[in-house]
Amino acid sequence: MAEYILPLEKLIEQFRHLPGIGQKTAVRLAFAVLDFTDDEANAFANAIRGAKENVKTCSICQNISDGELCPVCADENRDRSVICVVEDAKAVMSIEKVREYTGVYHVLHGSISPMAGIGPDKLRIPELLSRLTADVREIIIATNPTVEGEATAMYLTKLIKPLGIKVSRLAYGIPVGGDLEYADEVTLMRALEGRRLM
Amino acid sequence: MAEYILPLEKLIEQFRHLPGIGQKTAVRLAFAVLDFTDDEANAFANAIRGAKENVKTCSICQNISDGELCPVCADENRDRSVICVVEDAKAVMSIEKVREYTGVYHVLHGSISPMAGIGPDKLRIPELLSRLTADVREIIIATNPTVEGEATAMYLTKLIKPLGIKVSRLAYGIPVGGDLEYADEVTLMRALEGRRLM
Repeated sequence: MAEYILPLEKLIEQFRHLPGIGQKTAVRLAFAVLDFTDDEANAFANAIRGAKENVKTCSICQNISDGELCPVCADENRDRSVICVVEDAKAVMSIEKVREYTGVYHVLHGSISPMAGIGPDKLRIPELLSRLTADVREIIIATNPTVEGEATAMYLTKLIKPLGIKVSRLAYGIPVGGDLEYADEVTLMRALEGRRLM
Repeated sequence: MAEYILPLEKLIEQFRHLPGIGQKTAVRLAFAVLDFTDDEANAFANAIRGAKENVKTCSICQNISDGELCPVCADENRDRSVICVVEDAKAVMSIEKVREYTGVYHVLHGSISPMAGIGPDKLRIPELLSRLTADVREIIIATNPTVEGEATAMYLTKLIKPLGIKVSRLAYGIPVGGDLEYADEVTLMRALEGRRLM
């Protein structure tokens, strides 16, 4: 006999596609779904489809959004003269949690990684450049403190600094080799405060 | 602004319903789903609905099944004179992995737990008793080595032993206080071999 009956095997397989979920965890999660009521299972399935269908990217900053503009770009009180450039939407969430930053964002959707075949052309850099009007006085580069994040920061600096716009980088309060998603809020606040000119 | 946009918040909430998934992991998994293609997201959602809709219980042993009979009960080569009684379908999977047991199963769907208000009437015990024909020579009780599993084993022994059927219990090769789902295969094999009469 197969180890699991087919509908269960399929669900285990789906959970295994998720990052950080191994076989044992996938089995545990799949069995948990079997214990759901029909309504709970439908709600779960709908949430997955809903997230894919209703999450778009903001037409200004490229952050994920459920409307034409993301909540930050739609907020009239945010300072549009400072743009914080991040790799992904998770980094926006992390910085928003600090409740210290009042500027806006730009989400690159990745970082330059020659090893993975990701060049600058794969990132939302043209969309960033088109935002660099005379009103913009500072670009804070908040890419991850990794080789790829650093390479991206260097690339953007070379592009933007000649335009006469101040370019800064998050201070190395963030642990080197880490990921913005897991930085605690105090560390992130220090990193914002101690940002250095490039 | 809300911490996350609504469709994402809903999905994070759904992941948090799963056992052992905290806020950080739920956020990570939800973002992973956003990176899925539409086809991948649909496959995931369908697997959840499919598992709920297509997984039924076997009419004989009450194990989960995608048909009228589970693969074990449908297998003509299994020895119907030995019934291994387990708490849940996960335990069946664990014992099947040992590839040593040739009898059939009975899944109780729980264990007696006065603290949680689960009495013998909530378990599939009538279905077990109806299977105790003259052909049955042994009941192996393989409930979890917990207080509830032990209470269930004692209860079943008192019911079945007077009928003149041999009742045995898995040997304490399985770690006390543990869960069958996490026992390794050698430990489970020892436990099967060393089962003691009750």
